Amino acid sequence: MDIGGTKIAGALVDGGGRILVRARRPTPAREDGETVMAAVADVLAELAGSPLWARAGAVGIGSAGPVDASAGTVSPVNVPGWRGYPLVERVRAAGGGLPVELVGDGVAMTAAEHWQGAARGHDDALCLVVSTGVGGGLVLGGRLHPGPTGNAGHIGHISVDLDGDPCPCGGRGCVERIASGPNIARRALGLGWRPGPDGDATATGVAAAARAGDPVARASYERAARALAAGIAATAALVEVRIAVVGGGVAGAGDVLFAPLRRSLREYATLSFVRDLVVVPASTGTDAGLLGAAAAAFGTRPRGTALR
Amino acid sequence: MDIGGTKIAGALVDGGGRILVRARRPTPAREDGETVMAAVADVLAELAGSPLWARAGAVGIGSAGPVDASAGTVSPVNVPGWRGYPLVERVRAAGGGLPVELVGDGVAMTAAEHWQGAARGHDDALCLVVSTGVGGGLVLGGRLHPGPTGNAGHIGHISVDLDGDPCPCGGRGCVERIASGPNIARRALGLGWRPGPDGDATATGVAAAARAGDPVARASYERAARALAAGIAATAALVEVRIAVVGGGVAGAGDVLFAPLRRSLREYATLSFVRDLVVVPASTGTDAGLLGAAAAAFGTRPRGTALR
Repeated sequence: MDIGGTKIAGALVDGGGRILVRARRPTPAREDGETVMAAVADVLAELAGSPLWARAGAVGIGSAGPVDASAGTVSPVNVPGWRGYPLVERVRAAGGGLPVELVGDGVAMTAAEHWQGAARGHDDALCLVVSTGVGGGLVLGGRLHPGPTGNAGHIGHISVDLDGDPCPCGGRGCVERIASGPNIARRALGLGWRPGPDGDATATGVAAAARAGDPVARASYERAARALAAGIAATAALVEVRIAVVGGGVAGAGDVLFAPLRRSLREYATLSFVRDLVVVPASTGTDAGLLGAAAAAFGTRPRGTALR
Repeated sequence: MDIGGTKIAGALVDGGGRILVRARRPTPAREDGETVMAAVADVLAELAGSPLWARAGAVGIGSAGPVDASAGTVSPVNVPGWRGYPLVERVRAAGGGLPVELVGDGVAMTAAEHWQGAARGHDDALCLVVSTGVGGGLVLGGRLHPGPTGNAGHIGHISVDLDGDPCPCGGRGCVERIASGPNIARRALGLGWRPGPDGDATATGVAAAARAGDPVARASYERAARALAAGIAATAALVEVRIAVVGGGVAGAGDVLFAPLRRSLREYATLSFVRDLVVVPASTGTDAGLLGAAAAAFGTRPRGTALR
């Protein structure tokens, strides 16, 4: 299951990473917690209607964070009805008692990229989602590293500018505060950029302008790239990842982001053991959350016993 | 063995962390690589003269970095005669063929604190050495995490100020550039602080002045504490450590460092899963390097088979 502020998606996924059956509901994000849970139960019930359901061995959940995997609870920022909500226990009950594995959505995307995507074959990797927010996850020593609470790899809220702008998280100069899509757009607008005839004032509009050579639009992406580079280099110095995989809507800007990102990385990743770090785009696309949730569930037991 | 720019220390250490025999030579740091190696061989030969040597099962080395544990080589910044020097192979030969485990000095200190010190009993910990430089190491999931090359936990060279001062490593705004002893002293002097009657212009002198209430001296420690807090909070967000252990000469400043460090940490460690992070002083003292090298060697085989 892939649970976010906009949609609740579910799928039956086999040991080869094939999506066999899908179900999906909009997230009633402004409703009370039990209404949100009813949508989750609907998705599960729809999947349980498949003849393949009998072969399901576990439920993996990638959820918008923060999550607390040790307690089995979630408190997604964009779903106010869920605060310390016992999602694992409720899904276990709704899923007929199958074991449930919970991770944050950044960790889920990382599991997907390690299993099927650009981090495949890499024992030490950082994966990032750069979108409305900035999330991430880690593979260390060949295995997903969700951390005790399922939130590890939370690169969006590390400070790379200790005197920088306050972040809604309470910190200052966080990577997300500089590099998320809304912040790329906000900064470009603040510096005088104006959207084109299509009126797209989002980071996608800024990327189009940057591609057409607009210096202010380029500068906003360069600043985002710099913050991402400092965060990626910090992660490499701390845990020796060798590859950073970048996905999410902002990564869709392509070279507008990746060219300055690789340039800035040479400035921040200078130590001998981090100098060869490579940065590549993610490749699992919109199914990353579903695949990653499945991978996290497979990861807790011998591959293939969850659904074959 | 604990190999640094000033001294080469060796000891026979038992499975209970007791130091049974010691040997030590000054590091001929300005000499050629073979002269430095001769001092290492002298230390090993002195230890081998002990009747306890026959019970040694492995040699652990904590070396000034960078190291490359995967290649078995070291390139300590302060020992120019060693660049990509095959220390593991040479020590294996000098040590009569015993297996050799190499880690960076920050990782060694971490192994010591996890085995015998303030990180004992903690499954997820960051240990820092704040001294002439700033180093560190990680314990994740109950085990030392040296990383593929033995350098993980390198918190001194993560950038917490992406537009900050250039660092000798080639980066910018690194934790070490703000928080090391020499940088604490440099900043205080630059802001107008002058040493007292004892003429101590080092970070120790600044700490004494701060303790006596000198506002410039306090400000310099507060700035160092802020950089350390941002780095520690970043590490916690990335790998979910629950405790940070701070050792090294600068930690000797006590509350002059720890009070603003704990205060700043509340500003940067804001996410639910990092908010309870605690910071404590290291406790293994000057033998940390030797104990940690032994712990790293023990860690690669069942405890007690190295030396009982």
